[in-house]
Amino acid sequence: MTAISALTNHQVCLASRPTGLPTRANWRMTTEPVAEPGPGGVLVKTLALSLDPAMRGWMNEGKSYIAPVEIGAVMRAGGVGRVIASQNPAFAVGDHVNAGLDVQEYCLIPEAGIKRSGIFKIDPSLGLTTWLNVLGMPGMTGYFGLLDVGQPKAGETVVVSGAAGAVGQMVGQLAKLKGCRVVGIAGGQAKCDWVVNELGFDACIDYKAGDVKGGLKTHCPQGVDIYFDNVGGEILDLMLTRIARGARIIICGAISQYNNTTPVKGPANYLSLLVNRARMEGIVVFDYADRFPQAIAELSGYLKAGTLKSREDVVTGLETFPETLLKLFNGENFGKLVLQVAAE
Amino acid sequence: MTAISALTNHQVCLASRPTGLPTRANWRMTTEPVAEPGPGGVLVKTLALSLDPAMRGWMNEGKSYIAPVEIGAVMRAGGVGRVIASQNPAFAVGDHVNAGLDVQEYCLIPEAGIKRSGIFKIDPSLGLTTWLNVLGMPGMTGYFGLLDVGQPKAGETVVVSGAAGAVGQMVGQLAKLKGCRVVGIAGGQAKCDWVVNELGFDACIDYKAGDVKGGLKTHCPQGVDIYFDNVGGEILDLMLTRIARGARIIICGAISQYNNTTPVKGPANYLSLLVNRARMEGIVVFDYADRFPQAIAELSGYLKAGTLKSREDVVTGLETFPETLLKLFNGENFGKLVLQVAAE
Repeated sequence: MTAISALTNHQVCLASRPTGLPTRANWRMTTEPVAEPGPGGVLVKTLALSLDPAMRGWMNEGKSYIAPVEIGAVMRAGGVGRVIASQNPAFAVGDHVNAGLDVQEYCLIPEAGIKRSGIFKIDPSLGLTTWLNVLGMPGMTGYFGLLDVGQPKAGETVVVSGAAGAVGQMVGQLAKLKGCRVVGIAGGQAKCDWVVNELGFDACIDYKAGDVKGGLKTHCPQGVDIYFDNVGGEILDLMLTRIARGARIIICGAISQYNNTTPVKGPANYLSLLVNRARMEGIVVFDYADRFPQAIAELSGYLKAGTLKSREDVVTGLETFPETLLKLFNGENFGKLVLQVAAE
Repeated sequence: MTAISALTNHQVCLASRPTGLPTRANWRMTTEPVAEPGPGGVLVKTLALSLDPAMRGWMNEGKSYIAPVEIGAVMRAGGVGRVIASQNPAFAVGDHVNAGLDVQEYCLIPEAGIKRSGIFKIDPSLGLTTWLNVLGMPGMTGYFGLLDVGQPKAGETVVVSGAAGAVGQMVGQLAKLKGCRVVGIAGGQAKCDWVVNELGFDACIDYKAGDVKGGLKTHCPQGVDIYFDNVGGEILDLMLTRIARGARIIICGAISQYNNTTPVKGPANYLSLLVNRARMEGIVVFDYADRFPQAIAELSGYLKAGTLKSREDVVTGLETFPETLLKLFNGENFGKLVLQVAAE
């Protein structure tokens, strides 16, 4: 076993704020020595990081639901890792943990940062990366977004965009478990086939093939009761023309708009909210942190029973981060995007 | 007393669907003889009609919360009148009533149309046109929109646009009664002064004077908890940048957009709903019809106690309808716009 003082921590730092899609020039690769934790601190070796569309927002200046990543700072990321040194009685060497590890190989969490890092021990028997997926932020987002904000009722029609993405796959399956009719929207036949054949969605519309409007007419003849929006833009605007009376639109993200260099396109058909007595509401998953344990317990049960499936898109190598992140924005990733940093 | 068979009914019919602002060419003035009611029917003489922004929407083709007015049909309008002939035991000659009377001097309501017309007897002692204002659709819209959809809590900041209009004056006063800080937005110093000095709003921003953004910063330093939107467009978009966490935006109307000849401007800043875990929700007053009596009882109490004020903008003459309606869209009307058709 290598002594900690002999280790080098490779990191990916934000060098500048991007305009449009981030490029390699927006990142700086840095190294620093790895230090032993002080009293109450923990040193975690990063095994895998969660790559999420929300990261694009964290790179921007300005007020949001969370502070932007500072220029020069290690890029923010949640991840799973293994404790390799600990002066905190709650964590032992060898424990697997989930925490805000950031885009680096080693994360030193001082006592004062324990709470902020959100570190908690995980059971690796369900799969380590499951904690970045069904049992992680995407799972929690789908769970509370659909159930708390959307309030689905059996028999209702639920549409989810980004259906083959980390959040979309959860939303659709949970809606099926609640007895809803579920229609996905995804890019390409392979993703559409997968959510229908493997996840049990009732239908999936391939937006790359063109006729989303026709697809909605065909697959949602009674209109759309819940639309879980991960994409924004034209699809949100179109959906407003198809909502049913009393519909709920959950604003979870707007991946089509994150790399805009022109102003965001607002939903021109928003007056459909009036006509249909409908509502559009945002969700930020951190608000539900107190209830994560309850959701994790329920979702773990589904995983063990085999009633909930998920897919991961795992790319290996910290140094690939700048390009791997872009898979989220060019529609290339299929399932939860994970950056594997170390094997164990 | 003139015999009914000797009366002539002057009517304003929709001749064509307008593009942009309606002009006189979109209307046709017609006359027809007045007929006696058949069994179960009622004949009402129109005294005053309610002129509302929603009328512009009823003139358009296409699906909405209510069917469009057919080409050639008498224009739809709610109003107050006096029963001048009745074969219905629920209504006696001389009774004052509120009903869907349409833009005409006499309204014959057959037995089969009694329910659809929404006819009910009113107490004229509170003022006849009060039943088109505080105790009518604008009052009901403000009451249920603010209280049911908005759910105001004491100490919250409520902003209402169209503050000196029929709905706006209600919303602001009801919000004050609930212990909220209330800021209006209206066009011109006279309207702003009136809502502050007469109605007791905490402040009012004159959008015609320009700096709405600065006004919101000054008067809503903690952000906006409830925005009651009667106007849409730029002001809605601006408001999205000023909402507080957990804000509720009530979409009641979008008067700035009703006469557009270009596509409606969607709220580009809608992602603020996500950042602020806020919601935007539509209201259609007809959904609350079962609860109108309860609201009318409460609001009548406020009127009798003098705690609720209102202003009416009364224009006389059925034939002025085409031009009078435009007062709603050019910002000229001040208070509830009423078309007086007959003195008694």
